[in-house]
Amino acid sequence: MAIKEGLRPGGRSARVQESVHRAVRQLLETHERSGVTVPMIAACAGVTPSTIYRRWGDLSVLLADVALARMRPDTEPANTGSLRGDLQAWAEQYLDEMSSDVGRNMMRDVQSSPTPGYCVSILSGQLQVIVDRYPQEQPPSVDHLINLLAAPTVFRILFSALPLPVEELHALIELALKN
Amino acid sequence: MAIKEGLRPGGRSARVQESVHRAVRQLLETHERSGVTVPMIAACAGVTPSTIYRRWGDLSVLLADVALARMRPDTEPANTGSLRGDLQAWAEQYLDEMSSDVGRNMMRDVQSSPTPGYCVSILSGQLQVIVDRYPQEQPPSVDHLINLLAAPTVFRILFSALPLPVEELHALIELALKN
Repeated sequence: MAIKEGLRPGGRSARVQESVHRAVRQLLETHERSGVTVPMIAACAGVTPSTIYRRWGDLSVLLADVALARMRPDTEPANTGSLRGDLQAWAEQYLDEMSSDVGRNMMRDVQSSPTPGYCVSILSGQLQVIVDRYPQEQPPSVDHLINLLAAPTVFRILFSALPLPVEELHALIELALKN
Repeated sequence: MAIKEGLRPGGRSARVQESVHRAVRQLLETHERSGVTVPMIAACAGVTPSTIYRRWGDLSVLLADVALARMRPDTEPANTGSLRGDLQAWAEQYLDEMSSDVGRNMMRDVQSSPTPGYCVSILSGQLQVIVDRYPQEQPPSVDHLINLLAAPTVFRILFSALPLPVEELHALIELALKN
């Protein structure tokens, strides 16, 4: 809900949104993504197609909205008791999730969002939670962690033949902690 | 040509490819991208639509192929006489090109390529030329430069509200040179 409000302020019904999002998630599990259409989603969600067009504009924006909602984690980042440990746990999970088919598709869909910047806001929020746990360690800035950990992870998945090796990710964490 | 051969080895005619690529570039300059179709490209290139479908499969693959060809630079990276200078010149130009509308669209199209990894090969080739000029400076590895310079540049453009500030790019170059 919070995401939808952030993207598109206004008093539209949260129940419609939830039911449309759920329909999209269900259909993406059972169909090729190129076979999913607005009328199918509408039928599955029990709304009219025009409700969807009115609210989201077109399918790519709806898919982006669902992808952003999925990216919003349900829980706080793991607390391992050390800055290094928290960053390793977070970065390994992020690499894992993003290099899955679901993660790849989420990243592609999010690029069609009218507010792709919301993606970095979600990541920043998670990293800020970690950084705030260890003020005495003079942790690196969240922007620096995005540049050194999230960016190479995503860049390699989207544009390289192979994802970032975990050892390289660990070396980047050490580099980020050196500052 | 080299690109096409890399993507799809075989003896297909280079003239057809050049004329189809040129048609795509022209149409993208004069039309909304969502309005460009295979029949339009075929008409503009003087080939049949089935030639295009046979060779590229579908429009997204053709657009990706054109985007990859555009990414291949015509010239070697600028030689400023120092490793730092060459990296700054290269990274600033890359940031500049990728944050333009043309650059953004290229990055999106390339993701539909059957070989998106070719994108990192092109970048690696350019950075290798720079690195090879200064063996006595024990330059960082090309992979490290991709992680620290190219990845944050692209990640911010695709997923953040604002591109990477040039000062932050310079700081990342210094960090890469520290190793």
